[in-house]
Amino acid sequence: MARWEPGARERLQAAALELFATRGFEQVTAAEIAQSVGLTERTFFRHFSDKREVLFYGQQRFLQAFVDGVDAAPPGASPLEVIASALHAAASLFPAERRPYSRMRQSVIDQNPALREREQHKLAGLANAKTVAEALRARGTGEPAATLAAQSGATVFGIAFAQWIREGETRSLPDIASDVLHELVNLTGTATGSPKLP
Amino acid sequence: MARWEPGARERLQAAALELFATRGFEQVTAAEIAQSVGLTERTFFRHFSDKREVLFYGQQRFLQAFVDGVDAAPPGASPLEVIASALHAAASLFPAERRPYSRMRQSVIDQNPALREREQHKLAGLANAKTVAEALRARGTGEPAATLAAQSGATVFGIAFAQWIREGETRSLPDIASDVLHELVNLTGTATGSPKLP
Repeated sequence: MARWEPGARERLQAAALELFATRGFEQVTAAEIAQSVGLTERTFFRHFSDKREVLFYGQQRFLQAFVDGVDAAPPGASPLEVIASALHAAASLFPAERRPYSRMRQSVIDQNPALREREQHKLAGLANAKTVAEALRARGTGEPAATLAAQSGATVFGIAFAQWIREGETRSLPDIASDVLHELVNLTGTATGSPKLP
Repeated sequence: MARWEPGARERLQAAALELFATRGFEQVTAAEIAQSVGLTERTFFRHFSDKREVLFYGQQRFLQAFVDGVDAAPPGASPLEVIASALHAAASLFPAERRPYSRMRQSVIDQNPALREREQHKLAGLANAKTVAEALRARGTGEPAATLAAQSGATVFGIAFAQWIREGETRSLPDIASDVLHELVNLTGTATGSPKLP
C-alpha cells in the first residue's frame, strides 16, 4: 500500500527543479530526484507520471482559478471586468515567495526545446480554453466577444507573468496583470475614432 | 537534374488535400499524392520535406505579410491602426476562391491530434512573433504595448479565420478581421471608467 508522505509532492518538486537547474533536465532521472530527498522512485511515480510532469503539475488548478475568477465577478460586470476578475484569481496563485521557483522553472524550460514546446502548448490551451469563453457566454456575453475576451485574458496573463519573473521586478503578479490590462485598454483606445482597415 | 514542373507545387497541394480528406491523412503516402497528378515521388520531395508540410507550406509568407502590413501603416498611426494594417495584409492572402481549400484543410487538421498540435504551435508562433512586436517597437511603440498589440493581432486573426471558414459565412476575411477588431475595441471600452482588478 502507498504510504502517505507529508509534503512529498512539494519536496519532490523543489528537489527536481534544483537538479534540473544545476545539471540539466536531460541528465536527471526520476530515481535521482526521489533519492535526493530520501524518497523512493515508487513514491515519485505516485505523484508524477514522469519527470517532465514535475514542471507542469498544477495546470488544471491554474485553469480552474481563471474560471473561478470569471464566476466571482459580480452580475452585470462588463466582459472586461470579468476578465480582470479572472486575471486576479489566476495571478493570486503566484505569491511573492513563489517567484524564485517560477524564475528557476522558466530558465529550465527555456533551455530545452521540447519543454518550450510543451509550455507553449499549455499557454495555447489556456488561450483556447473553451471553459473561460463558456463561463462568459453563460453570463450573457455573445460571440466573438466571449472568445476574444478569454484569449485576451490569456495574452495579458502571459505578458504579465513574463514581466513578473524578470530580474529586478518587485511588483506583485496581480498588480502587473492589472497594469498590462490597462495597457490593453489604452492600446485599443488610442485610435482617433474607429479603427479602420485600409 | 531536377526538371522544372510548372505549377507542380499547387497541383501537389490540391491533390494531397483531396486525398487526405477522402482517405484520411495517415492513409496517404507522398508517392500516392505525386502519382495522382502524374508526378514522381522525387518531384514531391523537391517541393515538400514530408506530406505534413503540404498542409503547412506558406507560413513564412503569412508571417511576412503581417510584418509588411505593420510597415505599410502610415507614420503616426496608432498601434491599433498598425495592427489593423497588419491584419488587412495577412487577411488579403486569403481571397474568396481559397475558402473551400481552407475549409477542407481545417477539417483534415481537426481530425488528427498531431496536426492539431502542429497548427496550434504555428498559431502560438504567430502570437509570439517577435518580428511583429519588433516592427512596432521600431515605430516607437513601447513595451508591453508592442507585444500586447502583436499578440492581440494574432488573436483577432485566429478568431476571424475560424469564422471565415464556417459554413454559410460569405463575408471576406479582411471584412471579418475588421469586425473582430472592432469587437476588441468595444470589449475594452465597455467598462465604466477604468477596469479594476478586485
